[in-house]
Amino acid sequence: MKILVVNAGSSSLKYQLIDMKDESVIAKGNCERIGIDGKITHKTFDGREYVEECSFPTHTEAFEKLVEVMTKGDAAVIKDMSEIGAVGHRIVQGAEVFTKTTIVTDEVIDQIDGLADLAPVHNHAHALALRACKKVIPETTPQVVVFDTAFHQTMPPKAYMFGMPYECYEQFHVRKYGFHGTSHRFVSMKYGEVTGKSLEGLNIVSCHLGNGSSITAIKDGKSVDTSMGFTPLDGIIMGTRSGSVDPSAVEFVQNKLGFTPAQMSDYLNKKSGFLGLSGQFSDNRDITSAAQQGDKRSQLVTDMLTYEIKKYIGSYTAAMNGLDVVIFTGGIGENAPEVRKGVCENMEYLGIKLDSSVNDGLKGKLTKISAPDSKVEVWVIPTNEELLIARDTLEITGLDKNA
Amino acid sequence: MKILVVNAGSSSLKYQLIDMKDESVIAKGNCERIGIDGKITHKTFDGREYVEECSFPTHTEAFEKLVEVMTKGDAAVIKDMSEIGAVGHRIVQGAEVFTKTTIVTDEVIDQIDGLADLAPVHNHAHALALRACKKVIPETTPQVVVFDTAFHQTMPPKAYMFGMPYECYEQFHVRKYGFHGTSHRFVSMKYGEVTGKSLEGLNIVSCHLGNGSSITAIKDGKSVDTSMGFTPLDGIIMGTRSGSVDPSAVEFVQNKLGFTPAQMSDYLNKKSGFLGLSGQFSDNRDITSAAQQGDKRSQLVTDMLTYEIKKYIGSYTAAMNGLDVVIFTGGIGENAPEVRKGVCENMEYLGIKLDSSVNDGLKGKLTKISAPDSKVEVWVIPTNEELLIARDTLEITGLDKNA
Repeated sequence: MKILVVNAGSSSLKYQLIDMKDESVIAKGNCERIGIDGKITHKTFDGREYVEECSFPTHTEAFEKLVEVMTKGDAAVIKDMSEIGAVGHRIVQGAEVFTKTTIVTDEVIDQIDGLADLAPVHNHAHALALRACKKVIPETTPQVVVFDTAFHQTMPPKAYMFGMPYECYEQFHVRKYGFHGTSHRFVSMKYGEVTGKSLEGLNIVSCHLGNGSSITAIKDGKSVDTSMGFTPLDGIIMGTRSGSVDPSAVEFVQNKLGFTPAQMSDYLNKKSGFLGLSGQFSDNRDITSAAQQGDKRSQLVTDMLTYEIKKYIGSYTAAMNGLDVVIFTGGIGENAPEVRKGVCENMEYLGIKLDSSVNDGLKGKLTKISAPDSKVEVWVIPTNEELLIARDTLEITGLDKNA
Repeated sequence: MKILVVNAGSSSLKYQLIDMKDESVIAKGNCERIGIDGKITHKTFDGREYVEECSFPTHTEAFEKLVEVMTKGDAAVIKDMSEIGAVGHRIVQGAEVFTKTTIVTDEVIDQIDGLADLAPVHNHAHALALRACKKVIPETTPQVVVFDTAFHQTMPPKAYMFGMPYECYEQFHVRKYGFHGTSHRFVSMKYGEVTGKSLEGLNIVSCHLGNGSSITAIKDGKSVDTSMGFTPLDGIIMGTRSGSVDPSAVEFVQNKLGFTPAQMSDYLNKKSGFLGLSGQFSDNRDITSAAQQGDKRSQLVTDMLTYEIKKYIGSYTAAMNGLDVVIFTGGIGENAPEVRKGVCENMEYLGIKLDSSVNDGLKGKLTKISAPDSKVEVWVIPTNEELLIARDTLEITGLDKNA
């Protein structure tokens, strides 16, 4: 059984075709610049590649093109779309409406679109992609939506409420939603699979560190707190996002710079974080290398990043009354040994002890990096959100993976 | 030697006259409604009380009145102002300009006034009070300024920088300053005095919980991190202040409510926190009692308050790589056993163990409330910012306390 996984943005449509028999990726690609001009990049498992400049006025043309590329020509991987059992979509914001993976109906699409108020950049694009997909796949092929927020719907009110007047929650749905839920769920489940342990009774802190970063407290396999908030701006410092700042400072700076609210939002989301502090780099690899060459502002970024992660680990350990496992994932979490080292050093009070001989130089490989006598296990677990979306899709549709 | 301690706001001027021989309070009072109409309330150590409706167009008239009341009539405590050795003023914002207690000169007053941009409600009022005080005390009487922020100037950049572009710090001085420094310093020093221990080598988390609340990590007697930020809005939920919220949520709510930035600031500072969430109470005593009677939103406030404090303790324990002492102070910290209990329970991972027989019912009394076998000492230490201001003033002026 083949499942198509779709991750749509306002001007892009990333996809993976996964064979659920062995969970291998048959093809993956990206339709870019939707609404501008258009370009598709498509790669197959056996190394064939297809690139074309196209015209993508809407997500529908992008979908039509990906069907064409997947079914015809030199980079084809299937005969026709009926070979695809189901389509699984990544959706950023499910709010309190969607607490779990859901089969798509017209009503579901409208509800996702209706949440665009809470996730202006993403949800409307998701709805466009869902409607476009419906037009190009056979009527009988189910679509499934998997929400970044769903995993965090188990947080208790004391963790998800802000200290703003209750009407903000009741009327405007302002609360902590948390994001990267599919990633945090994937790596925590993976930990259970690899070690053969039940997550019941375990306290895990999962650190998804990438362009966007979030840290999640996972107790008994369930999210009980997370660092991203109402939007993905909150929490720790990120590539171009500020993370948490005193709410008063927002207005103060906006006033100083004479910004509109939209400009200020842009400033905090796209010009802050590593980029804004270093003045040069949004990529942690550049930051690390500049810091090693003595750039003080890049060193500051590194210091802040590790310090903030460390504080979240401490905070969530208190929230859960103990810590058994720390997981690093995401681009930085998987590939930056020096960040993992910075986070884990001087944490003797919890009994955290890295095995430097394992951690140093380790990139992108599922590995336990704590020493055998560490009281807390520390793991690098590469994330795979697409695979979990495919697994969810298979499960909820009841399709046979070997069909 | 008598020292007058002054805490001036934009429309009020609180004062204490302290005899440094035995650190006893000779008289204390408040000049209220400055700039509106005016009222003085004055009490002496031996129970005399004086109340008068007055005219206080500016802080100068208020100062003149307090001199009159202290030196003449039924509630007089001194013959004339020359009996006062020095005046110590509480100043909210010293920014990076003032890292310690300082003797007042005209330049110092101008610098304090110049920081009004960073603390609009307080610093200009402080400058007004300093200038008014100069007019009514003998020219030879030194004035001293003690800053709420000074104790936190030992924080490292990784703790005080926000993830906003560097220009916000460089040009607009936006960073974490922290507040309640005099209180955190007082209670940590008091802990040292009472136990006879040096603060060197100790990791202390000091929880100042009142109408405004802040939590500070104190390592080797120095502040290394604190929960209030650029302004006293940041950190944990407070009586009417929101504490930390996702910066994106500020703009979102402002837009929904059609607020100006000033209205939004008012909303977050004066209508949020306990008051905004419960819809009824800004005082923790009311919240606790309503929660006990089954009010769900008051229960939510209690849950959030204890949860957020707990997380800060965890966070700062990670920042310091261990924890020796937790101190509770401030109106709530000193007088709310149920808050202290909520914070300290389910903290076995740190070895925190309250002695319920000591904690329950304990109000406003310097007491160790942890069990003898608790790995972390937990104390209630009533704060006394005025006394520390007086001590600082004595020390920097080199006056003889027995004179």
